[in-house]
Amino acid sequence: MTPYLVTLDRAALEAQGIEGFAYGFADRVRFYELDALNHVNNTAFLRWFETARVGYMQDYGLSGYSHGPDDPQLVVRHQSAEYFAPMHQNESYIVTARTRLIKPSSFIMEYAVFSDGAMRARGDAVMVSLAPDGSGRRAHKPEAVARMIERDGAEVAG
Amino acid sequence: MTPYLVTLDRAALEAQGIEGFAYGFADRVRFYELDALNHVNNTAFLRWFETARVGYMQDYGLSGYSHGPDDPQLVVRHQSAEYFAPMHQNESYIVTARTRLIKPSSFIMEYAVFSDGAMRARGDAVMVSLAPDGSGRRAHKPEAVARMIERDGAEVAG
Amino acid sequence: MTPYLVTLDRAALEAQGIEGFAYGFADRVRFYELDALNHVNNTAFLRWFETARVGYMQDYGLSGYSHGPDDPQLVVRHQSAEYFAPMHQNESYIVTARTRLIKPSSFIMEYAVFSDGAMRARGDAVMVSLAPDGSGRRAHKPEAVARMIERDGAEVAG
Amino acid sequence: MTPYLVTLDRAALEAQGIEGFAYGFADRVRFYELDALNHVNNTAFLRWFETARVGYMQDYGLSGYSHGPDDPQLVVRHQSAEYFAPMHQNESYIVTARTRLIKPSSFIMEYAVFSDGAMRARGDAVMVSLAPDGSGRRAHKPEAVARMIERDGAEVAG
Repeated sequence: MTPYLVTLDRAALEAQGIEGFAYGFADRVRFYELDALNHVNNTAFLRWFETARVGYMQDYGLSGYSHGPDDPQLVVRHQSAEYFAPMHQNESYIVTARTRLIKPSSFIMEYAVFSDGAMRARGDAVMVSLAPDGSGRRAHKPEAVARMIERDGAEVAG
Repeated sequence: MTPYLVTLDRAALEAQGIEGFAYGFADRVRFYELDALNHVNNTAFLRWFETARVGYMQDYGLSGYSHGPDDPQLVVRHQSAEYFAPMHQNESYIVTARTRLIKPSSFIMEYAVFSDGAMRARGDAVMVSLAPDGSGRRAHKPEAVARMIERDGAEVAG
Repeated sequence: MTPYLVTLDRAALEAQGIEGFAYGFADRVRFYELDALNHVNNTAFLRWFETARVGYMQDYGLSGYSHGPDDPQLVVRHQSAEYFAPMHQNESYIVTARTRLIKPSSFIMEYAVFSDGAMRARGDAVMVSLAPDGSGRRAHKPEAVARMIERDGAEVAG
Repeated sequence: MTPYLVTLDRAALEAQGIEGFAYGFADRVRFYELDALNHVNNTAFLRWFETARVGYMQDYGLSGYSHGPDDPQLVVRHQSAEYFAPMHQNESYIVTARTRLIKPSSFIMEYAVFSDGAMRARGDAVMVSLAPDGSGRRAHKPEAVARMIERDGAEVAG
């Protein structure tokens, strides 16, 4: 059986020459991610960040995306992306994610895309944790905070 | 290193209990493929068929998608999809593709999506082979036709 | 103020030379609907059909997409699309929708895309009406059935 | 006939209570822009910015997107987006675009989304002007620069 979208941890990423991240996955560019300029559209990178983020949330225990009462709704308040080089059909890449800073009901994540040993794009996102119905802020689950600190070296702010 | 989007041949597919196909790949449902009903949107399946089709074209030698003079432009003339069961976030699946019938400058493909041992969706597409500039019909490359017959058991029509 | 995505009824469509439909809207091709071949990707047409379908459901009273107990979940069981000519950036078009056949808990819709006085694509879909939680079939709302018959000339099957 | 995606100039935007922009268009949220949380996905806003940007490029004469020798390839080097409130199915909005700063072969744009008299999101992008084959930087067309200064009040940097 073919493994795919398998989570890459710090050791697996370091074996690929990627330092500073403890969460990622490998994938390939698909035809639907190209635009009329025949390279990967800028929004596709944000989809990759999203896929990494959703996997990260579940892996670190921030949210199970169950829409149930135990699971906060995690929304993007701000995001940015920087593009270093165009990417093309079938190109293999690794996308990584980590948390840099944790606040009581929000946190700042960083993402990067690597291909052929070079960083092709990077980004960050300010994530806000809301009640499942979106009605107000929600504190993070302590075990998730512990993992963000331990695995990513995330800082904690007041 | 994580293998991913690795081509599954007839033997690999049969090992997964999938009969009758000689080309496929494994993947997982991503967040961006869900819609507001919280299951995979019907168009996402057509994206999977497209990803399988583009890989198939390159693997069988029908087109390298180079936009150069040697490569026909392969366009969808007709397609259909049938949906048997909803699919959800993170669900693992295998999508397969094969050619059923070959005509001088077109061919009919079939696709299927399998998850947990059951077919979740199937589809077909009538593909037309055009000159690279779209100006007229283009005959298939003989070696590609040979592979479609040998691997898929495709029939040839006048 | 600019009107946009305004529902076109039978009279408005006939004024555009489109016969046989009582529901549609006008729009223009956007950059993100193009693919690497620099024309509208085949799945974008299915997005247009979807947008027309969701508007139609609300306009005819089949579902308010409220996810509440009164609103059936309408899912696509089968769909097809036929493509007659490529479409390009900024191209203006009208997409139309109608119901051809009504069954107790399902119905068959037809869609078409018109540009420059010609049909560029057509499609159909078998829609199934489920309980809001997807647990079983749900009968259509009588007032919606009445509108499908009156406006579209839909046939009713046992 | 229904007008749609009609360019809104400064006067038309001011009539809607939107100050400081000379280019925009009105639209409505579509079903495919929602995600599993049942609100507009964060990447959809970037699609709206892209649609506004491509229209702006053509309207201001920066590029005709012809892929010909006269038309630079305009690529996103950096972008950001800030989200103030969730948006929902069928919601009407206006998206606007302007250039803030012009450099010899790049420029900085700003975007905003307005609904019900409030700004729902804003963003910016650093655009780089390349030769049509992507081989190197390309100076802007003088008439486009003149329009960015006159219409948007863009500043010119070294």
